[in-house]
Amino acid sequence: MARLRLVVAYDGTDFSGWQLQARDRTVQGCLEEALGRLCACPVRVIGAGRTDAGVHALGQTAHADVPDALAGRPWQRALNALLPKDVCVTAATLAAPDFHARFSARGKIYAYTLWTEPTFLLPWRRPYVWDVGRQDGLDAAAMTAAAREFVGEHDFAAFRNAGSPVKGTVRQVLALEAGPGLSPRETVWRFTATGFLKQMVRNMMGALVEVGRGRLAPDDIRRLLDAGDRRLGPATAPAAGLCLERVLYDDALPPVASPDAT
Amino acid sequence: MARLRLVVAYDGTDFSGWQLQARDRTVQGCLEEALGRLCACPVRVIGAGRTDAGVHALGQTAHADVPDALAGRPWQRALNALLPKDVCVTAATLAAPDFHARFSARGKIYAYTLWTEPTFLLPWRRPYVWDVGRQDGLDAAAMTAAAREFVGEHDFAAFRNAGSPVKGTVRQVLALEAGPGLSPRETVWRFTATGFLKQMVRNMMGALVEVGRGRLAPDDIRRLLDAGDRRLGPATAPAAGLCLERVLYDDALPPVASPDAT
Repeated sequence: MARLRLVVAYDGTDFSGWQLQARDRTVQGCLEEALGRLCACPVRVIGAGRTDAGVHALGQTAHADVPDALAGRPWQRALNALLPKDVCVTAATLAAPDFHARFSARGKIYAYTLWTEPTFLLPWRRPYVWDVGRQDGLDAAAMTAAAREFVGEHDFAAFRNAGSPVKGTVRQVLALEAGPGLSPRETVWRFTATGFLKQMVRNMMGALVEVGRGRLAPDDIRRLLDAGDRRLGPATAPAAGLCLERVLYDDALPPVASPDAT
Repeated sequence: MARLRLVVAYDGTDFSGWQLQARDRTVQGCLEEALGRLCACPVRVIGAGRTDAGVHALGQTAHADVPDALAGRPWQRALNALLPKDVCVTAATLAAPDFHARFSARGKIYAYTLWTEPTFLLPWRRPYVWDVGRQDGLDAAAMTAAAREFVGEHDFAAFRNAGSPVKGTVRQVLALEAGPGLSPRETVWRFTATGFLKQMVRNMMGALVEVGRGRLAPDDIRRLLDAGDRRLGPATAPAAGLCLERVLYDDALPPVASPDAT
């Protein structure tokens, strides 16, 4: 078998997330169906991370094994011809046999977009943002101070939702910073970590917005981390604002599009 | 009656264009319905231009007369609470009684976005671009030379499609230039003119892409203009790539969002 490495972009709006499900439409399901047709045999697709329903991706990464005889196919073109319109392969290369989309990953970058204009929401941005616009704005300095509390190695038990069992809840956040969005009405928070727990980005984002609204103080973040109790934390931010921007490997492929393209 | 001036953004994908129709869903229809409910009487909405089905707007402008007793309402908030998710009012102000969205307009700016990456199309950009990606690219220098032929006062009979009768087919194109799009995979052509004939932007864009593909020479544009025969011109570019970015008036309101927000 030959191992394919795929970089995949998708609009999560109409998917029940990444992971294969018996009845619901998933990104993994679409990719396995397309690869199965091209190979005329069942093909398993392993993704770097399991994005939730409604979460988007610019640079999800996956691997799949295909028969050696087919290794030389123009995989990107062939897959994009078969895939539905809300998912596309932005790069397809042959990988070493020991490349594993999930276990070889050194980290991930997620982008979370806040819509901060209080009086309207541009229609085409609605599926890709969390509308937090308020006349009195969000306290950016407090949010920046709170974000600093997340950076470093911490037990993130207070910021993960129940789900598949995991080995430990300690993760290392390498960077967490706000940058400009597509329009002056948007702010993009970019989360870089060695790994993320279930809904960890959305829970951190929910907490940051509570700080921005003055309902939590920056110091409360450390207290929440220390307490380690999810029930004390603020609500999970909506899925729509989140995008898996890039998965980091030792042999980083360059990103296929600027982060702006989200 | 008090005259409202509305700046309207919409995603044209699910609209049968701007103009009111008996059965089909239109932007004008949605605005008239919302204003009618707020005023408890029929309200006519006049737009600066009638965008086609599938064409988007960032800065469409319209006016409407409402009862004097209601003039002080928070119109933007009230309308956005009632309007469907694919249309929003980005500004609502009281205007002079002689302000007319169409007749007071000094010009319009349309943006047309080309997707130029040959191997994939990011899903969330599909409804807003024309996918012209080709491995051998488009000849940008030839397109720029061709665009120059359009600038100035010309009879654009060769670049309008049949439709409502108009007084003459001479229009003045003030500027026509390419700029960067949201990602390195996009190019935005921006058309500024005193006025546009039916599907004039899409016909000009169709001709420019034919030049980019080497099927027309830049000089052919002048020949097409001179011949004045629509049947000789290239195909109309798809509606999805087009956005009415701004309507120009003597008392220009600042644009509500950067052109990037399209």
